[in-house]
Amino acid sequence: MGKKEPDINAMLACPRPFEPSSHITMAHGGGGLVMHRLIEDVFMKAFDNPLLGQRHDAASLSIKGVHLAFTTDSYVVQPLIFPGGDIGSLAVHGTVNDLAMAGARPLYLSAGFILEEGLSLDLLRKIVNSMRCAADASKVALVTGDTKVVNHRNGDGLFINTAGIGVIEHDRVIGPGSVCPGDAILINGDLGRHGIAIMAVREGLEFETTIESDSAPVAAAVLDLLGQGIDVHCLRDLTRGGLASTINEIAESSGCGALIRESAVPVRDDVAGACEVLGFDPLYVANEGRFMAYVAEQDANRAMEILSRHATDTQPALIGHVTDTASKRVILESRIGAMRILDMLSGEQLPRIC
Amino acid sequence: MGKKEPDINAMLACPRPFEPSSHITMAHGGGGLVMHRLIEDVFMKAFDNPLLGQRHDAASLSIKGVHLAFTTDSYVVQPLIFPGGDIGSLAVHGTVNDLAMAGARPLYLSAGFILEEGLSLDLLRKIVNSMRCAADASKVALVTGDTKVVNHRNGDGLFINTAGIGVIEHDRVIGPGSVCPGDAILINGDLGRHGIAIMAVREGLEFETTIESDSAPVAAAVLDLLGQGIDVHCLRDLTRGGLASTINEIAESSGCGALIRESAVPVRDDVAGACEVLGFDPLYVANEGRFMAYVAEQDANRAMEILSRHATDTQPALIGHVTDTASKRVILESRIGAMRILDMLSGEQLPRIC
Repeated sequence: MGKKEPDINAMLACPRPFEPSSHITMAHGGGGLVMHRLIEDVFMKAFDNPLLGQRHDAASLSIKGVHLAFTTDSYVVQPLIFPGGDIGSLAVHGTVNDLAMAGARPLYLSAGFILEEGLSLDLLRKIVNSMRCAADASKVALVTGDTKVVNHRNGDGLFINTAGIGVIEHDRVIGPGSVCPGDAILINGDLGRHGIAIMAVREGLEFETTIESDSAPVAAAVLDLLGQGIDVHCLRDLTRGGLASTINEIAESSGCGALIRESAVPVRDDVAGACEVLGFDPLYVANEGRFMAYVAEQDANRAMEILSRHATDTQPALIGHVTDTASKRVILESRIGAMRILDMLSGEQLPRIC
Repeated sequence: MGKKEPDINAMLACPRPFEPSSHITMAHGGGGLVMHRLIEDVFMKAFDNPLLGQRHDAASLSIKGVHLAFTTDSYVVQPLIFPGGDIGSLAVHGTVNDLAMAGARPLYLSAGFILEEGLSLDLLRKIVNSMRCAADASKVALVTGDTKVVNHRNGDGLFINTAGIGVIEHDRVIGPGSVCPGDAILINGDLGRHGIAIMAVREGLEFETTIESDSAPVAAAVLDLLGQGIDVHCLRDLTRGGLASTINEIAESSGCGALIRESAVPVRDDVAGACEVLGFDPLYVANEGRFMAYVAEQDANRAMEILSRHATDTQPALIGHVTDTASKRVILESRIGAMRILDMLSGEQLPRIC
């Protein structure tokens, strides 16, 4: 394994003296506490309304009696192409998955492209074609779009925003408010691959095998859970901030704590090794094809069977359950049986991974 | 009137040797021919589907029998705050207006923020509050959002993407396909203010009075036209590329030419003066609160009355009509009665104005 020297000149040219209390810092985009405070203090305060107040990956709307989900994400990942995907496929999977987390069937996407002057048209074509393939595989149509160009050095090659509309075809209320003590907590596969795949390229790390991103659409698995009548209480994808941050967000919103068994959380050996080298905890690393499902205890085994049928190169896992405490604490039972509090990501771990 | 010296150092640092056949150039975002070729060659080719093929500001969708419009735009305007508005209010008006151009009642917006490391939090708060005010005035709710942070010098302070959903409550087919020879072509007010307001700040120009952007929501006017039974055939807002590019787009899509009387097109004296100084033609300058309505000839006067009621600091105008030619040519009758072809904007005029 090798590691490139950091670019000292680039570091010196950009001293980053920004103070997070008055200016935006990279941590404001990292998926942890600093980002959550920004969202609450600036955005939630200004746009306060019940739909936004759902604090879900997608808003649930009703228009003339039809129940819809609506969501958006911007994608700023670097590099634009990485092992297992690119910014185009990511921009489709991420938004489709946010719709799925509301229990919706994804239908339509919009795409807004911010192109930096100087971007290669061949690279753009490659990424746009990858988006098309990802949309086809996710059974969504890209129906409206926009293109803007910014001056050289006022962008970073390409940023993509996608917004998505899905239809909700069931009456379940899926969200933290439906979480109950005793609920089984399932994940649909191994953790940490997306963040590590990006980081390995960015830092010039070389492993024996290339770690590929787990970026993939998960709507089919979610719709199957719902279609088979699984009593699904909450769904959340494990992107920025990883499992640890997501599970803490749900604990905070639901008012219920959780107990997670570390030994039950699948992490591939190569990913675990890379995490050790880089000093990361896989529980905080971002994924782009992984989600948590909180389901009624009695449906846990059946839900595992359904998730297994949708897993290709990985297996789902029952990693813990919701506890009956008022503390909203998430407790991790380590491999040797020790208990510790699993906190939300507190600063910046891996910026610009999505 | 004064003009700041151009920043030669900045120009030298960025030689921009980009070739538009292989790389993105500013002209690809200018709203003219180069942008249209990019959209056709790269995006339309990849995402080919009937809904995108509508080539409208917003896609018209039907979900379980409910007729919806869906649209998106990214906003990269510089400076972030300008006379008469800011990137936040612009991001609301622009998307609300795109929904209105499909004859839809705007209902819900998403917002994706791409923040550059170092952006002042006070400035962000100001812009976000302006968005909230614009959303309230436009009767839409911002219901879902996303925040990303990019490194210092990989962004330009703030980019905002908004996507919008509206409901279509009538059975009219509004679009170039409905345009007929004889249709009256109306605009809802004077032209050129947004582009000139931005350009004046950017170039450090000072006029006797400050020219303020016309940025405003137009959905109420459109819904009133439809509600009063005006036979509306096509609607289009006059943003990038201005009136000239928009009317050519519609001529191209509808297969019908148009005749425009220059003397009927309202341009304020201060805007006309600034255009002369800057070497711009107001027919190509962007607006953010102006639209064209193609209506059946017999409804023209009634439509003018309705548009007058919604005009605050300007008056609507009947500027010409659709001609019965197969040439798709747009002809401008000048103030002295000479006829000339009015072409689409061919390159870059005012980049990053929206």
